[in-house]
Order: sequence, then structure tokens, then C-alpha cells
Amino acid sequence: LPDEEHSEDSIGVANGLAWTQVGGETMLIEVASMVGKGNLMLTGQLGEVMKESAHAALTYAKHLALDLKLKSDIFSKRDYHVHVPAGAIPKDGPSAGITIATAIISEITRTPVHHDVAMTGEITIRGNVLPIGGLKEKALAAARGSVKTIVIPKGNEKDLNDVPKKIRDSLEIHTVKHIREVLEIALTKSLATMEKNGETEPTTKK
Amino acid sequence: LPDEEHSEDSIGVANGLAWTQVGGETMLIEVASMVGKGNLMLTGQLGEVMKESAHAALTYAKHLALDLKLKSDIFSKRDYHVHVPAGAIPKDGPSAGITIATAIISEITRTPVHHDVAMTGEITIRGNVLPIGGLKEKALAAARGSVKTIVIPKGNEKDLNDVPKKIRDSLEIHTVKHIREVLEIALTKSLATMEKNGETEPTTKK
Amino acid sequence: LPDEEHSEDSIGVANGLAWTQVGGETMLIEVASMVGKGNLMLTGQLGEVMKESAHAALTYAKHLALDLKLKSDIFSKRDYHVHVPAGAIPKDGPSAGITIATAIISEITRTPVHHDVAMTGEITIRGNVLPIGGLKEKALAAARGSVKTIVIPKGNEKDLNDVPKKIRDSLEIHTVKHIREVLEIALTKSLATMEKNGETEPTTKK
Amino acid sequence: LPDEEHSEDSIGVANGLAWTQVGGETMLIEVASMVGKGNLMLTGQLGEVMKESAHAALTYAKHLALDLKLKSDIFSKRDYHVHVPAGAIPKDGPSAGITIATAIISEITRTPVHHDVAMTGEITIRGNVLPIGGLKEKALAAARGSVKTIVIPKGNEKDLNDVPKKIRDSLEIHTVKHIREVLEIALTKSLATMEKNGETEPTTKK
Amino acid sequence: LPDEEHSEDSIGVANGLAWTQVGGETMLIEVASMVGKGNLMLTGQLGEVMKESAHAALTYAKHLALDLKLKSDIFSKRDYHVHVPAGAIPKDGPSAGITIATAIISEITRTPVHHDVAMTGEITIRGNVLPIGGLKEKALAAARGSVKTIVIPKGNEKDLNDVPKKIRDSLEIHTVKHIREVLEIALTKSLATMEKNGETEPTTKK
Amino acid sequence: LPDEEHSEDSIGVANGLAWTQVGGETMLIEVASMVGKGNLMLTGQLGEVMKESAHAALTYAKHLALDLKLKSDIFSKRDYHVHVPAGAIPKDGPSAGITIATAIISEITRTPVHHDVAMTGEITIRGNVLPIGGLKEKALAAARGSVKTIVIPKGNEKDLNDVPKKIRDSLEIHTVKHIREVLEIALTKSLATMEKNGETEPTTKK
Ligand SMILES: [Ca+2]
Ligand SMILES: [Ca+2]
Ligand SMILES: [Ca+2]
Ligand SMILES: [Ca+2]
Ligand SMILES: [Ca+2]
Ligand SMILES: [Ca+2]
Ligand SMILES: [Ca+2]
Ligand SMILES: [Ca+2]
Ligand SMILES: [Ca+2]
Ligand SMILES: [Ca+2]
Ligand SMILES: [Ca+2]
Ligand SMILES: [Ca+2]
Repeated sequence: LPDEEHSEDSIGVANGLAWTQVGGETMLIEVASMVGKGNLMLTGQLGEVMKESAHAALTYAKHLALDLKLKSDIFSKRDYHVHVPAGAIPKDGPSAGITIATAIISEITRTPVHHDVAMTGEITIRGNVLPIGGLKEKALAAARGSVKTIVIPKGNEKDLNDVPKKIRDSLEIHTVKHIREVLEIALTKSLATMEKNGETEPTTKK
Repeated sequence: LPDEEHSEDSIGVANGLAWTQVGGETMLIEVASMVGKGNLMLTGQLGEVMKESAHAALTYAKHLALDLKLKSDIFSKRDYHVHVPAGAIPKDGPSAGITIATAIISEITRTPVHHDVAMTGEITIRGNVLPIGGLKEKALAAARGSVKTIVIPKGNEKDLNDVPKKIRDSLEIHTVKHIREVLEIALTKSLATMEKNGETEPTTKK
Repeated sequence: LPDEEHSEDSIGVANGLAWTQVGGETMLIEVASMVGKGNLMLTGQLGEVMKESAHAALTYAKHLALDLKLKSDIFSKRDYHVHVPAGAIPKDGPSAGITIATAIISEITRTPVHHDVAMTGEITIRGNVLPIGGLKEKALAAARGSVKTIVIPKGNEKDLNDVPKKIRDSLEIHTVKHIREVLEIALTKSLATMEKNGETEPTTKK
Repeated sequence: LPDEEHSEDSIGVANGLAWTQVGGETMLIEVASMVGKGNLMLTGQLGEVMKESAHAALTYAKHLALDLKLKSDIFSKRDYHVHVPAGAIPKDGPSAGITIATAIISEITRTPVHHDVAMTGEITIRGNVLPIGGLKEKALAAARGSVKTIVIPKGNEKDLNDVPKKIRDSLEIHTVKHIREVLEIALTKSLATMEKNGETEPTTKK
Repeated sequence: LPDEEHSEDSIGVANGLAWTQVGGETMLIEVASMVGKGNLMLTGQLGEVMKESAHAALTYAKHLALDLKLKSDIFSKRDYHVHVPAGAIPKDGPSAGITIATAIISEITRTPVHHDVAMTGEITIRGNVLPIGGLKEKALAAARGSVKTIVIPKGNEKDLNDVPKKIRDSLEIHTVKHIREVLEIALTKSLATMEKNGETEPTTKK
Repeated sequence: LPDEEHSEDSIGVANGLAWTQVGGETMLIEVASMVGKGNLMLTGQLGEVMKESAHAALTYAKHLALDLKLKSDIFSKRDYHVHVPAGAIPKDGPSAGITIATAIISEITRTPVHHDVAMTGEITIRGNVLPIGGLKEKALAAARGSVKTIVIPKGNEKDLNDVPKKIRDSLEIHTVKHIREVLEIALTKSLATMEKNGETEPTTKK
């Protein structure tokens, strides 16, 4: 997976941690929204399980949008495109779920994601975070790059023992049970603030 | 299948009992609804038979909604997403039918499902409950967890003899012929009350 | 195929006779209609030929609806779901054609089907009834259950010789050339009455 | 292929001649139209080439409808269903083209087809009739049944030598180059009359 | 490929030159348009490459229609059907591109195509004509029939040496780089005239 | 890949550099837009990865269009057709991403592309340019033709050492990290000018 330069907090992009045959990798997930009809476009040679993860993430984002009092036509009159570079490398599995959810929610709330946070975890449509595989390799990959903080499922707490102490000490590690906890860590603004401020509309030309 | 924490009565989620090569398992089924066009989204690596079960459950739910005098646009102007974690594990068979129906009906009536009830049974579009396989293994799985009550098809009554007495004594076991009986046991409010109260509208931002 | 209890004359359900490698079987066919866009949903692991049969049955039902002066939006603004339990057992062949047609026409005219009538026969879109296979095994299956009357294609009259006399005597057997003859036997009201009474509208909440 | 009784001149049904491994056969083609959105439904286990033939026939019928000054919404607001019994027998090839076209045009003009005419020939979207295979076997099949007249492509004139003289003498044989010639022979009213009379509207309940 | 009689200049039909394992062939391409929703129907057992060629031809035709100031709803409110007889013979490759384009443009401008012109060449969506294979065999096929003029890609000029002198002398041969040059040769009216005359509307009943 | 004459700066066409088993190649990419419903048509035997690249390019173009203050219905009420001649040659991979993006953006801004510029690079939906393979072969192909300037990903800078010095000296070589840099080099007008001038509407007949 390519090492795109990613040194700024940006809207609609989040750092995931992938696990391949050759070890762990950081993996950028990009989300863009545009005037549309409520479709979800998925590119980057994603497998069936990863595509379903993206749909689960989108469904959760729609529920959160109600709580945040966002206008419902941000989904019905827009299309969402989730792209995972590099385009020619097949990717699969459910562990990018919370990363996709974070990128989508960043896009709909126009809130940047901290560029030095990386994350891994399966998401359910109610926002629960389920455990994933390859934690050790993913932690090593995070430490190799410019990542300072990683977010992992509570259900993987036991696997932290397998991660070398040096790596654990070099990273701020959060274990979470729900995507709302992920968002508090990864987004540059807290959800509580957004809920108070009421509608946060995407800047779209109409 | 993952052991998501599930210690509260929630709307749109119900406990199923699955039967795999390695024994019985509890299996959460999540349902979320959102502004849409009447589509049914199915994720969690469901096989063809299980997908058809979900369609049968939805058709029954639409008929029940008429009896409960719910507004018909809860189906025509909303989408329903049924997700069965964990996302990477293939699942199939008709035995989740009544669990899917219960989760959908919980969602459309905004009525929580008792978190300590688990169930198994095929559903037909008229709401009849048909027998399933693996009753013994499913009962064992229910007893292992925090489940107090299980609902099974009348047609499986004969298979109760295969379940160890200790397990039978530790669980409240209901045998049913129709999904309405399941709902009386699993939902926190009775259908009769709902029918009296008239329309029970989902809280949706418009 | 499961032996659902079916002891009442009901709307939208009819008894078919199936022929499998292990002999004949009775087979319930359920039809439900709901607010929709004119779609036909087919579940129960139906093969291609059986799906085409259902489409042929629906087309005939649409033509009959004109004769009965039913409102045309009972098809354009509703969806029809044909389900054949049990959900996990693959089924195929054209011989359920007249059973599907009977269940659909029961549903659109809100007329119950006699629960002790079973039937078998291919249907064409003009309502002609064509011969089927396995008549002997089907007659035996009907006699085993609570069926009193069977309806079979005129083209299978010759095959009645293969049915044991005892079975033939225990059943009322009708041979038919057109689905209208089937409906006169299977429905609890005659088509002539319906045509006189004019529009018979399904009770649908709008 | 089944020998449906077909002893009356009917609307929307025409006799084709098929050629299979076991010889020639007569083959009924049924067409029904209904309130719809311009779709063409094809059933009877038709292969790809035969499906394309049906589309070619429909396109020609649309062009002819302009000449006959039929209302254009007989296509845009109706669906057409072409069914070829028996439902379980696979059929393919382009030679049913003119039979399908005749049945469709019978349906849209509400003009019966002579029940004792059978035909075979490929059709193009401009209405040209192209030669087919198996003429001898098809002629034999026609003579075996109640067919009095057959219509064949001009391009098959040379193959008539292969047909036994006795058969040729027992049938009225027409060779044609365009579907308009077929229609003059097969329909019970001439196109010229229809064109004079102006609009011939199908009797549809609205 | 069949030798349909084609002795008149017609609208919506053009002569192509095909190259098969058994040599060259002339090949008629028929186009019909009808009231519709902007769809392109392709029949005649066309392979993927040939289908894409037809889409390229249609896109070019849409651009030309702007230059000719044709009403834009000739595409958005009509369907186009491209059929290549004989219906049972599989056809593929990009070399029918300019023939399909010519037939479509004949249809939309209501301008007949010279029946004694045949052509071969790949088309791009900007109307460029690219070289094709089998020029020699195609020229021989053209000479065998009633074709007087052939149009070939400039990029195949070098291959003319392979064509016997006798054949070259018997045909008028044009080499072209753009479809506009093809149209000047094949259509019975020049594009310049059409552009001057302004809108040339197809005679469609509405 | 064919050597179409391409000696003028044109709208909606850009020079790519492809890498095949037999070496490098220049490859024209054509884009045409037309009245439509927001669809993207892709022809030229493109593989899955290349199709996804085109979708990524289109998504980026939609975002850029907002910055350029183009009317949003240039996407919702138009279709885009991306064609890569020659039509019969299969093509795949992500490296045509920036070429497709350039051709699309040329088309929507009605700005010609310099005909002597060629380019290669994967694009992400945020417009980032990622490295590609076969740089040496592509540079050689560019030098063989009439190309004067090539644009390559910054991430391929290290691979320039593999390119013979003579070739490097004969070409103007730009390394880029974002598609905006590509557009400044390849388009005949700068984006800054377009942004100042406000809306640049495609000349479309309505
Ligand atoms: Ca990486
Ligand atoms: Ca964005
Ligand atoms: Ca479990
Ligand atoms: Ca919910
Ligand atoms: Ca049974
Ligand atoms: Ca019903
Ligand atoms: Ca026959
Ligand atoms: Ca009819
Ligand atoms: Ca020929
Ligand atoms: Ca025409
Ligand atoms: Ca080249
Ligand atoms: Ca253009």
C-alpha cells in the first residue's frame, strides 16, 4: 500500500491499519461526497466483506446524522465514494470498518481527522466495535510511520501482550467498544460540540 | 460469532441461536432503518437461503404493520438494513427467520427486545414458525451465555428429549407455532397494547 | 416439505402436489401482497422453470382481474410475494403453475381457498392447463394427508389408471383444461358471483 | 412440445413450427399484454438467440404500429409477455421470429390469428424474413396436425424439393420475403383494412 | 451471413464488410428507433467488442446531432435498436464501427444510404476511423456482390497492394480518416446541406 | 495501440503512456459528454482496475468543478463516455488515472489539452498522484513519438535513473504529487484563470 504524504488533518480521509501476508501496513481511506441520488461507490479492488463493512459504516453514519441533527438530504441527494489506494491492490476483511466510518463521518460533519491517529476494528450497524486479527503486525506498522496514536477494539486488549513493549511505549493506545469513542479520539472536534451547535452542513454548490 | 456485550433491552436487535460445525452459538441480529426507497440491505456474508428468510420476515412485518395501523410509508419511504456480525463469517439457513422478524418488528414499533431471550425458527410469509435443526446444540449455547428464555418451534418439541435435563431446567423454554407468540415473549410490550394505542411512529428526522 | 398445520380455508394460500425423488408430497404455496411498485418476489429456493411458472401465473391473474373488473392498481401499486416453504429445500418444475395462480387469485379477490383441495398442473399465460409428471405419487401423497379433492390436468387422465383404485376412490378427482375450472373447485366463491358483484377490492391501508 | 387444444382463431396466439433432434413439432406461441412500463417478459426456457428474436419482433411491431396509427402508449404504458409452452422444455434459435411477431401484432391490433396456419422464419427489425433450417421436418409436423396452411421464407423455396410430394399437396404453402405477407395470410383481417379504419385500440381497463 | 435482398437506398440500413474464418462477407446492419428512454438495444449475437463499438458509434452520432442542430430528445426520448442478421451467427470485433455509425446517422437524419456502398473501419467517439484486419478478403466479398464502392480506413491503404488488381479496378475505393468522410460518400445527401437546412426531424407519431 | 493522428490541441482528449508486455506505448484517451442522467460509460475493453480509476477521476473532477464554480448539472444532467482506442485491445491498471482525469476536466472546462504532452500516474479521489510501473518503457515510447513533455508521479523520481540519458534530455520531464500540477502543465489555460473567470459552461444544445 502506497505511502501517500498525509501530514495535515484533512476532511474525509482517515488512517487505517491493514494486515497482509507480508506484515502490517498503514492504509489511507478516502471519502468524497457529491451531488447524487444516495448511492455508495466503492473502489480500490475491495472484496465482498470489505464492501459490506462500508455499507455497515454508512448505515451507522446515517443514524449518527440524526443525533447530530444534520439535514437528511445529505444522504438522499448526495452520493458517497469510498476509495482505498492503491487502486490495483486487492483488499478485503472487516477490520477497516471503523476507519471507513470515521472518514464518512468526517466528510458529513466537515470535521478534519487527526493525521497522526490510525485505527483498526470491525463496525456493526449499531456502532459497536468488534475485535480484529493481526494486532501485533498492525501496531508495528503504525510505529514505523508517523502515527502517534492508535485506536483498537476492546476485544483485542488481550493481544496487546504480543506487541513488543518498546512499540507499546512509543504509541498512545486506546481500546474502544463503540465508534463514538473512536470519533472523540480521531476527529478534531468533539461530537458533543457538534450536537450543541446543531446543523453542520457540508459546503456544497447547489 | 462474536460475543458482543448485549446487556440492555434494545430496539432493533434480537438474539438468535445458530448451529455450526463446531456446535451451537448465540448470534446477534441487528436491524437499522433509515430514510430510503423501500430497499432491504443484507450484510454479514449471508447465504441465499438466509437472504430469502429475511425477505420473508420483512413481508410478514409489512402485514403486521397493517394490523397495528402503522403508517404505510414506514416501508415505502425507508430502507431497512439487516446486519449479522461478525462480518467475515459466512452464515446461511432459514433458522434465523423469527429472529430477523423480531428485530424488524422491534424497529418498526420502536419496542425493545428482552436481551435475555434467544430464539430459533424458520418463518413463512404468513408468520408460521417451522422446525429447525440442531436444537440440542443451540440450547447448550443459550445456557452457556446470559440467556434465560428460549423460543423454539412447536415442531421441535420432540427434539427437547435430546437436550440434557440440567439445561432444560436452567432455561425457560417456549414452543410456538406463530411469530405473534414469539413477539409476545420477546418484546417488552404486548402487541395487543400497540393495537389499542394506534399508530406508533418511528422517531425520524424529516 | 414441512407439514404446516393448514386446517382452515385461508386467503392467499393453496395446496400443491410436488413430486420428488423420494415420492409425492403436499406443498403449501403462500402469497402475500403489499404496497409496492408492481414487483414479484419469489422465495423458497425456486428454480428457473418454477420462477417462470410464477410469472406465467401472475400474467394470467392480471388478465382475469380485467374480467373481474378489479382496479388495475392492485398490480401497479402493490408487490406480490410468492413463498414456498420450507425455505432451505430447492424446488423446481412447472407443475406448481395452477397452485401459484390459485393462491394469487385468492389474494387479489380476497376469496379463501378450500383447505382440503390440492392441485397440480402447468399453466400457460392464457390459463390453459398442461399435463405434469408423477401423477401416481402425487395422488398417494394427497390421500395420505387431509386432502379430500384433487385437481389434475385433463392431459393426465390416462395416467389415472396407474393410481391404485383404493386411492382413486378415497379422493374426489377433477380433470381440467383451464384454470377457470380449477378456481371454481378451489375457491370458496364462484367467479361468476365475483363478476356480478363488480369490484372486489383488497383491504389495504393507504 | 405439448399439443394444447387450439381449435379457434384467437388473439395473441400463433402456431410456429419447431425443429428438434427428434423431428419437427408444432409450437404454440402465446402473447399477453398488460398495464406496465414498456417491458418485455420472455418465459418458456428460451435461449439467448430466441430472446433476441423476440426483441427484433417487438421492434418491428412498434414500427408497424406507427403505420397503423395505433396509440404509442400501447407500448410505453403496457408490458408484453411472450410465453412458449411447455415451460420446462428449453427452446432456442431464430426461426420462431415471424411467429412471435404475428402473435404480438395480433395482440396489439386485437385481430385473431387463423388457427390452422403455421409458420417458420427468422425476422429482422425491418420485417424481412430470412431462411431457416429443418424445413422438411417442419412440413411433416404441420401435416400431421390440424394445420392447413404453412408460411415459409422465400429463401427456403429450394428446400421444398426435400418435402415428400404427398405432404406438399396436403398443405397450402406460402413463401414470403416480408412479415407483411405473413400477416396477410395469418391474420383474420387485412392490414390495409386496419390502416383505413385508423386507430384500433386494445380493450384495456384503465 | 444471409444475402438479404437490398436493392434500394434505405434509411437506417448500411452495408458492412465482415471477415470470418471462411473469408470475407457482406453484412447488413439495421437500425430502428422508437419512442423510448434513451436505451440502446443490440441484437444479432454481438460480442463485447462489437457492442462497445456500437456505443462508440452512438456517442459520435450524438455529437454530430448537435452540429446538425437536431432536437436533443431524438436521443433522450427514443430507444435505438441495432440488429445484425442472421440472428444465430455470433459476430464480434470493432470493424463494423463506421457501418453502425452510418446506419444510426441515416436513421436520425432520415437520409437513405446508397445500397451499393459497403464499408469497414473502427470508429472512436470523436469519429476517427482506425484500421481493421482482413482487407483483402473483404474487398473480394464486396466485388462478388452488387457493391460498387467501398470505404476503408486510411490506415489500411498499405494493405491495398494485397488486393488483386482486377478487384481493385472493379470497385471505387475510398480511404478515409474520419466518419464525416464516410457519410459524404454513403449518404444520399451531404451533411453540409443538412446543416444549412437546420432541423431534420424524424417522422414519429407522438 | 493505434497511432491516431493527433497533431492539434483538442478538447476531451489526452495522451497517456501505457506499458505492455511488448514495451511502452502512447495511448489516446477520449472523453465525450452528452445530454444524460449522470452515467459514466467506459469502452475500449477496460479491465476492472482501469474502470475504477475512471470513477476515481470522475469523482475528483466533480470536486474540482465545485472550486471552478461550474454548474452542478454538468454532471447530473449529462453522461460521460470515456473511450480508449483501439477497441479490441484489452487494457487495465491504474496508471491511466491522471490521463483520464485530464481528459474529463478538459471536457468540462472546454479547455484544450496540449497535444505534445503525455502523462502517466494513478489518481486518488482527492487528486493525489501515486507511482506507477514501467517508467523506462513509457519514457522510451514518448520519445519515439511526437511527445515533447511528460508528466510522471513524484513517487517515480527514483526510477528516472533507469531512463537512458539521451531520452531524458530529449523530453521535458515533470514530477508531480497532485493532479492540479498535471492540469497546469497539460491544459492550454491555467486553473487560476478559470477560477477568476467564474463559470465556464460547456456549449450544449438544450
Ligand atoms: Ca503503507
Ligand atoms: Ca471531500
Ligand atoms: Ca457467540
Ligand atoms: Ca435503529
Ligand atoms: Ca409435506
Ligand atoms: Ca395476505
Ligand atoms: Ca406439439
Ligand atoms: Ca391477451
Ligand atoms: Ca452475405
Ligand atoms: Ca426505421
Ligand atoms: Ca501507439
Ligand atoms: Ca466532446
